[in-house]
Amino acid sequence: MFERTSRFGFHLINETRSRVRISEGAYDNNGHLQSEAIDRAISALSQFLIIARSYKTHKILCVATSAVRDAPNKKYFLKRVEKELGLKIKVIDGKKEAWLGGVAAANLLPITDGITIDIGGGSTELALIQNRRIVETFSLDIGTVRLKELFFDKKLPIEDAKEYINHTLAKLPETFKSKQAIGIGGTIRAIAKAIMQRNEHPIEKVHAFSFSIKDEGKFIQKVSQSPIMKLKKIGIKKDRLDTIRPGALIFWNLLEKIGAQNVISSGVGVREGLFLSDLLRNSNHLFPHNFNPSVRSLQDRFSIDTKLAANISSTAEAIFNALQEPFKLPNDAKKHIKIAAKLSQIGIGLDFYGYHKHSAYMIMNNLNYGFTHEEMILIATLIRFNKRRLPKNSFTRPYKKLLPDDKTLSWLSYIVSLSQTIHFSREKGKVSVTYKNGVLNIDTPFDNYLAKERIKELEKPASIAILFS
Amino acid sequence: MFERTSRFGFHLINETRSRVRISEGAYDNNGHLQSEAIDRAISALSQFLIIARSYKTHKILCVATSAVRDAPNKKYFLKRVEKELGLKIKVIDGKKEAWLGGVAAANLLPITDGITIDIGGGSTELALIQNRRIVETFSLDIGTVRLKELFFDKKLPIEDAKEYINHTLAKLPETFKSKQAIGIGGTIRAIAKAIMQRNEHPIEKVHAFSFSIKDEGKFIQKVSQSPIMKLKKIGIKKDRLDTIRPGALIFWNLLEKIGAQNVISSGVGVREGLFLSDLLRNSNHLFPHNFNPSVRSLQDRFSIDTKLAANISSTAEAIFNALQEPFKLPNDAKKHIKIAAKLSQIGIGLDFYGYHKHSAYMIMNNLNYGFTHEEMILIATLIRFNKRRLPKNSFTRPYKKLLPDDKTLSWLSYIVSLSQTIHFSREKGKVSVTYKNGVLNIDTPFDNYLAKERIKELEKPASIAILFS
Repeated sequence: MFERTSRFGFHLINETRSRVRISEGAYDNNGHLQSEAIDRAISALSQFLIIARSYKTHKILCVATSAVRDAPNKKYFLKRVEKELGLKIKVIDGKKEAWLGGVAAANLLPITDGITIDIGGGSTELALIQNRRIVETFSLDIGTVRLKELFFDKKLPIEDAKEYINHTLAKLPETFKSKQAIGIGGTIRAIAKAIMQRNEHPIEKVHAFSFSIKDEGKFIQKVSQSPIMKLKKIGIKKDRLDTIRPGALIFWNLLEKIGAQNVISSGVGVREGLFLSDLLRNSNHLFPHNFNPSVRSLQDRFSIDTKLAANISSTAEAIFNALQEPFKLPNDAKKHIKIAAKLSQIGIGLDFYGYHKHSAYMIMNNLNYGFTHEEMILIATLIRFNKRRLPKNSFTRPYKKLLPDDKTLSWLSYIVSLSQTIHFSREKGKVSVTYKNGVLNIDTPFDNYLAKERIKELEKPASIAILFS
Repeated sequence: MFERTSRFGFHLINETRSRVRISEGAYDNNGHLQSEAIDRAISALSQFLIIARSYKTHKILCVATSAVRDAPNKKYFLKRVEKELGLKIKVIDGKKEAWLGGVAAANLLPITDGITIDIGGGSTELALIQNRRIVETFSLDIGTVRLKELFFDKKLPIEDAKEYINHTLAKLPETFKSKQAIGIGGTIRAIAKAIMQRNEHPIEKVHAFSFSIKDEGKFIQKVSQSPIMKLKKIGIKKDRLDTIRPGALIFWNLLEKIGAQNVISSGVGVREGLFLSDLLRNSNHLFPHNFNPSVRSLQDRFSIDTKLAANISSTAEAIFNALQEPFKLPNDAKKHIKIAAKLSQIGIGLDFYGYHKHSAYMIMNNLNYGFTHEEMILIATLIRFNKRRLPKNSFTRPYKKLLPDDKTLSWLSYIVSLSQTIHFSREKGKVSVTYKNGVLNIDTPFDNYLAKERIKELEKPASIAILFS
């Protein structure tokens, strides 16, 4: 369930799953859905509808994928659902499924190019993304459950499974080549989580976690070949133990096939793609350039004064422009400074005292889409230390490998603090900034009594003078 | 700046201070406010007005206390402010000041009886509270700055200062006796913070922190007698070093005079009292019985479905009633369970994933008023573990001395989890609960497909059976 907060701003307000196991018993019956499984599905859907109605949902999008798509008796199931619940389920084909995953990835991950890989129980979907556009999709008839039943359950040699996979992979068009793989779905998420754990990755989010094949390729192969008893030890969660090995095998062979060097894992997939395909139906299924739905949604929900936030952000940009050259600040940091300044006040919506901490907490937990983990922790750090003090080691230490060097970080933090302090009395107006011979000259169209009182208390990364003119 | 969220719900959205030092130089000039100090005050007030206007404030309440009250040239100052800023400052007397502190304490602290002590620079205000009512107020002509200048700066023996204090305290009516002292203002806040630090108190909030004279009386006396160099070492912050010793001396003598055995420190005072005296002007300056402004404000701001929250809360109460006797649960825990159930979903407003963590974070940072620290951490813990697992030691360990025993905590936590799970499909209706022979019987007027699926996964504090009828 997504709540729209503005034209393109949205956030998730409910996600309910039910382990329906719709295909239980189907494989033994030529893919026919069994009546108990259908009953379970109807019970679950009926409660989903109650939940949807409790939120006064405007629109319900309902799709079915491989298990239903392949069932000879799907019509019976779909008709029962329509008759008993008044709900129309749309059965989508593999290419559409791949496309939806692609839409989610292209809009909600910090990538512009790559190939999405969504490994399901019966099929695996791929979408080729170039310059944020989905240029091709493909669906392969290999999946974790299928492989498990055909090879792993029968204890056949792993070579047989590999041969089967490669036989299927041969059908993949040669255009599907990319250094960047994008991992969608439960199997790859479980593998990514295990990799995060073994590397003591300091951020718990699986969305946008990125790793290289060079570093982790061996581990993925190991997962595909480990005895079930050992899987838990290497970080695989209980509910994935039965299908992770065939999943990892498909994943690894696909990575080799497309020539991937890096993987970014996705917390979003078909569901989010479905929502976005509706939200963005009149804008070529892409968010506007430089638009970020998480930043917007945080502002929509928690900014007390959006115009002031935008003004603080412009001031931060002006200070950055003045200081970038003399202090050798990295180009792309301008973007992060601007966002940090813009979101610096959102924590007030929770509690005024220590709001910079709350703003940082909110960023760490809700700046979900479109940023790398490096960007997320940088923005959070700049917000966390936007008051008197520069970032402290006790805070940044766990994130060291994701953050810029201390000197750069200090400067970026100081710029955000300074821009916030300049607008301490909440006055708006264009602020001009120049830097010359150790003096930062700030020209504002408003009075600065409170700002001057506070600027003295800001910890500086180097001894520069501040002058108001 | 307070924002109203409903009839009695409110939260702080801005607090701006400026160190105007309005009385600087006044003591050397028979209390006359000096022109530089007046200029500073006018500059600061002018910026305060800009801030107030930027929020489109409906009402500005502006009062002055001792320094202005005692100044022979106050009219000149007040007229300048009115002429230049269009702002009318109301000079309040000591009794009114004491009353405002009392209103804040009686409404926003977990107390019904006690004496507020607000030690200022020139005077000290007291309000006697009985059964949430202010029955008497008093203003004493002793303050930190006054004492500092009369005795400490002149390096006179501390006995002289004590004699002076006791002479003044003799004027305090004999009715001012209470076991419960309520500490208001910067001096007592600084002492409370030092006490929290030396006891490694696990919650950072000074508001509602409570300590006994038996344990901390010696420390308060020590503060009044320490050389300035040593004050920092015992936890006194820099900006208080000059006035903390006379402050602690007044505080200690007052505690003895009123016969206090316990102190609760307050983060609120005259400012909040002023706001409340306006908000509650038609309700006898008291919130309605059983009304808590923080709970209401959190609900107003973050509850997606208030009626559902109330229903989950009633269900929690029904389960508590059924289990209280067999498992010997403490009476007053019912209140905490109900609030935890009611606020369990507020974290969704921030982010759906892991929302129980966000709800707990929000409680720890915004359940400001009317609860003890013990209650706050209990409610937060019940919310933090309202999903599958019972409270973990790794989370509760730092708060051990503030929380109930593990077994009780497990039961309370389970009750909140269970009530939330029963309403998993967000359906409303009266839930009846009985417990007999190890079986908890739950009778709901709605279907429970999803609840049943999830109840199995809840970690239980003891092996009881759950039956839906």
